[in-house]
Amino acid sequence: MSETANGFEEQQQRALPAARAGGAAVVDKAADFANYFCTYAYLYHQKEMLSDRVRMDAYYTAIFENKHHFEGKTVLDVGTGSGILAIWCAQAGARKVYAVEATKMSEHARQLVIGNGVSHIVDVIEGSMEDVMLPEKVDVIISEWMGYFLLRESMFDSVICARDRFLKPTGIMYPSHARMWLAPIRSGQGEQKLLDYENAMADWNNFIEDTNDFYGVDMSVLTQPYSGEQKKYYLQTSLWNNLHPHQLIGTPFIVKEMDCLTATLDEIAIVHANFTASITIEQGRFSGFAGWFDVHFRGSPSSPASHEVELTTAPSIDNSTHWGQQVFLLHPPMRVMREDVLEGTFAMTRSKENHRLMDVQFVYKSKLSSGETTDPVTKYFCIE
Amino acid sequence: MSETANGFEEQQQRALPAARAGGAAVVDKAADFANYFCTYAYLYHQKEMLSDRVRMDAYYTAIFENKHHFEGKTVLDVGTGSGILAIWCAQAGARKVYAVEATKMSEHARQLVIGNGVSHIVDVIEGSMEDVMLPEKVDVIISEWMGYFLLRESMFDSVICARDRFLKPTGIMYPSHARMWLAPIRSGQGEQKLLDYENAMADWNNFIEDTNDFYGVDMSVLTQPYSGEQKKYYLQTSLWNNLHPHQLIGTPFIVKEMDCLTATLDEIAIVHANFTASITIEQGRFSGFAGWFDVHFRGSPSSPASHEVELTTAPSIDNSTHWGQQVFLLHPPMRVMREDVLEGTFAMTRSKENHRLMDVQFVYKSKLSSGETTDPVTKYFCIE
Repeated sequence: MSETANGFEEQQQRALPAARAGGAAVVDKAADFANYFCTYAYLYHQKEMLSDRVRMDAYYTAIFENKHHFEGKTVLDVGTGSGILAIWCAQAGARKVYAVEATKMSEHARQLVIGNGVSHIVDVIEGSMEDVMLPEKVDVIISEWMGYFLLRESMFDSVICARDRFLKPTGIMYPSHARMWLAPIRSGQGEQKLLDYENAMADWNNFIEDTNDFYGVDMSVLTQPYSGEQKKYYLQTSLWNNLHPHQLIGTPFIVKEMDCLTATLDEIAIVHANFTASITIEQGRFSGFAGWFDVHFRGSPSSPASHEVELTTAPSIDNSTHWGQQVFLLHPPMRVMREDVLEGTFAMTRSKENHRLMDVQFVYKSKLSSGETTDPVTKYFCIE
Repeated sequence: MSETANGFEEQQQRALPAARAGGAAVVDKAADFANYFCTYAYLYHQKEMLSDRVRMDAYYTAIFENKHHFEGKTVLDVGTGSGILAIWCAQAGARKVYAVEATKMSEHARQLVIGNGVSHIVDVIEGSMEDVMLPEKVDVIISEWMGYFLLRESMFDSVICARDRFLKPTGIMYPSHARMWLAPIRSGQGEQKLLDYENAMADWNNFIEDTNDFYGVDMSVLTQPYSGEQKKYYLQTSLWNNLHPHQLIGTPFIVKEMDCLTATLDEIAIVHANFTASITIEQGRFSGFAGWFDVHFRGSPSSPASHEVELTTAPSIDNSTHWGQQVFLLHPPMRVMREDVLEGTFAMTRSKENHRLMDVQFVYKSKLSSGETTDPVTKYFCIE
């Protein structure tokens, strides 16, 4: 056998890790590490995030333009990674910073803390947020926990855990608020994906014939499951995109708003929203939806930010991020005109097989400017 | 965060799964599933292997040209995957075939067995070979267990387990023998890899400067670990190659020979061999070593094959396999001439972090035709 057969890697890359590992209703820590945390143990990956100027500027400005939140205060950094947020908090005047990191990246973070002369302020603690103990409650919890389309990775679970265990009643969350956005888009990718899927099936059919002719085994009973597997891969998996703003063809809408100070696990485990989006272009093709997020640094009601900061991952020419947007392509695309209105519901739940990945459902119809309404369409996707 | 940040995938792909998950001296089953087995649950991947004509022809011929090993006999197929070997054994006249598969691919295998009318002969059993129970001992154990350079994936462990638990004293192993080969090669890839590494470090140095200038954090303490990480990725990880036979510049040599009927875990956990290889080209560049394997189907001493079959993954123009060869590039390459002789030792052990991946060490010197001998060189690689 050869489980990384050349050419398979491309698909495996986006294939659902441990998809068939028998369900993860109960999260197995070792599997979670293999599937998820291990990535963060690579400096290469830390560098990718540290090179995201939009991300860095937002946190940097939020901290240093709101020093009153940090001076003489205790801070908890959830998932500190390289430790940069913790170091900034120390530089901004924090009395003590607890920097929790689940992976061995903690060792590099410790080096970096020493190298930047704040080891008397920053304690790097290796462990999962659910397990670690802190000697005191904290005034501020800071974390860069956002995954694709905000909730992928389910890392906010650990932030909630940290908040409920260690944040003082008067404490502040950095960021303090988060929103999930969707908008109808046009895209040329859909046709290619459909073609890729069709080619994969044509190739499969040749394979069926050859296996029958040369090796006397009829594989046709597997055609349906193979088609399902390929459909999921090519047509039902959201795509990372860095969209041009011109690709937005309708009004963006919010499907989730979160106050990080009060958000609950139940609230993020299932996202459900009705939506209405008006087409804003003269006429064109509705290829699918794009999803992104923004977070805000506003301090808390009792201690608002003196300088509010927004970090947005919306389509942008000059300020794109490593998060990009998640694109959900619809097959086939639909002709639309100005004042057509898309109406429907969006639902996002966690994948049964891997709680850090997401299953998404769109149900929508379009009210045409002509007056008629199309039949409702239901589409399923996974965010991997 | 975003653990599949665009652009990271390429590196992550070959990064050691769960490398930092804290060691796998004791194999965690869930992690092993996440890192390894899950791949085999995809029909796409099964198709890749089923489309390897050299692989398929070898097993097909071995079975159908040696029907006397199967007619009326009981067979165990270790890691049946799609079930094709089990079906062939049934078609060749087996009385009963136990087809063991650890992943949900077992459900597809069961469909395939029914679809090909041999469900009265083939029992598909989902479970790991270490755990399953069989109602009887078997006459033949067949398995396609070979990974890159034979032993990657450590799947032969399960074959040994199956053999010791369930093979009759007079039983036969399919395949019956295996060998690991190495040979000195020339390759243009080395320069590119070195360049990639140098570019990665140049990029890192800019990153260090920017992070210092824009964000007031000195990252230079991480330069050494980053360099180590990138070296491992670009220079110390073996590469999948499908070499042209002309790239072999010296005499191939065997570093491991295995009788599948008697091989022990200790024997495969550590491979150690001295080697001598003579340069066979007039003159040229010695870029590194290539490793491959072959297996043989010879039956057993008491019941030899009437038609011996060899499956080789050696460099070939017309008969390349999905296994290809593993290439270990040396930096810098070395000028060599006919009759120069490479002398050294090869050692392969299992990675501490993941028992299915391998650590490799070469120690060698070259005796030049001029008479002088170069200083010994030591190189480390991992097979991921």
